[in-house]
Amino acid sequence: MDTRTLAADQPIGVFDSGMGGLTVLRALRAAMPREDFVYLGDTARLPYGTKTAATVQRYALQAAGRLVTLGVKAIVVACNTASATALPAVEAQFPDVPVFGVVEPGAAAAAAHGGTVALLATEGTVRGGAYQRALMRRGVRMVRARAAPLLVALAEEPSAAQHIQAAIIGDYLHGLVQSADTLLLGCTHFPVFVQQIEAQLAGRAVVVDSATTTAAEVAANIAPRAHEDRGEIVLMATDGADRFRRIGARFLGEPIHRVELVDV
Amino acid sequence: MDTRTLAADQPIGVFDSGMGGLTVLRALRAAMPREDFVYLGDTARLPYGTKTAATVQRYALQAAGRLVTLGVKAIVVACNTASATALPAVEAQFPDVPVFGVVEPGAAAAAAHGGTVALLATEGTVRGGAYQRALMRRGVRMVRARAAPLLVALAEEPSAAQHIQAAIIGDYLHGLVQSADTLLLGCTHFPVFVQQIEAQLAGRAVVVDSATTTAAEVAANIAPRAHEDRGEIVLMATDGADRFRRIGARFLGEPIHRVELVDV
Repeated sequence: MDTRTLAADQPIGVFDSGMGGLTVLRALRAAMPREDFVYLGDTARLPYGTKTAATVQRYALQAAGRLVTLGVKAIVVACNTASATALPAVEAQFPDVPVFGVVEPGAAAAAAHGGTVALLATEGTVRGGAYQRALMRRGVRMVRARAAPLLVALAEEPSAAQHIQAAIIGDYLHGLVQSADTLLLGCTHFPVFVQQIEAQLAGRAVVVDSATTTAAEVAANIAPRAHEDRGEIVLMATDGADRFRRIGARFLGEPIHRVELVDV
Repeated sequence: MDTRTLAADQPIGVFDSGMGGLTVLRALRAAMPREDFVYLGDTARLPYGTKTAATVQRYALQAAGRLVTLGVKAIVVACNTASATALPAVEAQFPDVPVFGVVEPGAAAAAAHGGTVALLATEGTVRGGAYQRALMRRGVRMVRARAAPLLVALAEEPSAAQHIQAAIIGDYLHGLVQSADTLLLGCTHFPVFVQQIEAQLAGRAVVVDSATTTAAEVAANIAPRAHEDRGEIVLMATDGADRFRRIGARFLGEPIHRVELVDV
C-alpha cells in the first residue's frame, strides 16, 4: 500500500465559525459523494464576521490545527471571513496540507457572469477587501459592498417571521444592486435566503455564491478516495451540539443526527 | 492607612460578553459617581446568549479572573446570560470578592410593579430559567418568556433602518404581553430599544430592566471610595477596540475615547 493511497483515503477537513459552512459542505458532498468529510464548527466563538482580523486568524489556526491532527488530506476554510483574512496564515502553518478558501471561487463564480458585481458579506469580509481584490484580478468591477450582520443572526433563527425576513433582506438589497449585474453572497450563511433574495431582485441581478465553485475547485485538486461507496461525514462543534443539530440542518439541507463536542 | 481604606479606593470591576453591559455601567456611574470602574467586554467571544451554560461559565470565570488580578473591590456580572448561568461559579472561585449579578435585581424590579411578568431575553437566559425561579421566589408569576436573538444583533447595528427595528421589535412583542402587566428586559442589550418598545406597547405593560436596581444593590453593599472627585472608568475589550468605541457609545450613552485591548 503506498502512502498516496493512504492519504487519498483520508477525509477532507472543513471548518467554519459555526454552521454557515454547512452550505459549502453540502456542495462538497454533492460534487464528491465518495469522499469522507470532517466538519468543525467553532460555535463556542461564533460569529467571526464582527471580529478583527488578528482574532479570526488565531481562531482559524486553532480550528485548522485540530483538523490536521485528525489526518485530513485537505482543508477547506468554509467561512468567508476566515478565508478573507486567515488563508495565508493557515497555508503557512500547515505547508503539507492543501488549503482551499471560498473567496477566490466566489470571485470566479461572479466573474463567470460578467458585468459588475455587488457584494453582501460580513463586516470583517467587507472591511478586509479580499473580494474586491480577487474580483479586480479578474478584471471585474465591484460597484458596492455591504456588510449584513443581521442576516447572519437571521439565518440562525429559523423561527423568525416571513415578513421580518423580507424586511431585513429588502433593507440590505436596497440600493445595492441598482448598477450591478451580479449579486455575490460573500457569507456562507446567506445561501439559505437565496429564494427570498431572488424573489426581491425580480431578475435585476443574478445571485451567486462560493459553494459550487469551491466544491469544483477542491474536486479538481485532490487525490480521490479509492472506494466506490458513499463517503461519510463527521460533524464536530466547539459548543452547543443540540443547537448545531437543530439549526445546522437548515444549512446542510438534511437532518443532522450526531454532533461531537470538541475543544480546539 | 488601614486595609479597608485601601480596598475602598479600588475600582469596581464590571464584565459582560461585549458592549451590552455598558447599559449597566451607565446606571452604576449614575448611582455612584465617585467610584472608579474597570469594565471588561469579552468581544472576542461574544455573544454569550446563544452558547451553552458550560461554555458561558468558562468564559465568565476567565473574565472575572482578569478583573480580580486588577484588584477590584467588587465584581458586577453585567450580562444576563452570565448572571443566569455562572454566578455561583464566579462566587465560588473568588470567595474574597463580593459578586453581583443582574438577574436578582431584574426580578426585584419586575416584582416591584406587581402583577404578572413577561420576559424578553437571550436563548441562554430563557433556557436556564433563572429569571423564572427568581420571580417565583418573590411570588410573582411569569406568564411568558421569549428568546430574542435578533434583537442582540440589531442593538449592535445602529445603522439598521427604523422600519426594520420596528418590525423586529413588533414581532418579538407580538403575543408576549397580552396577559402580562410588566415586560422585563432580561438582556443588557435591550434597554437601547426602550423607547421603541414602550411606543409599541402603548401602555399595555410597564417596561423594566436590571440596570437601575443592580446599581442600587451594588451601591448599598460596597465600601464607598473616600475621595470626593468624580471617579474614572477604564474600558477594556478582548477584541475590536474600534468597533467597541463606535457601537459601545450607544450603550454607555456617552462618547467612548479609549478602549484597551486585553487577553483573558
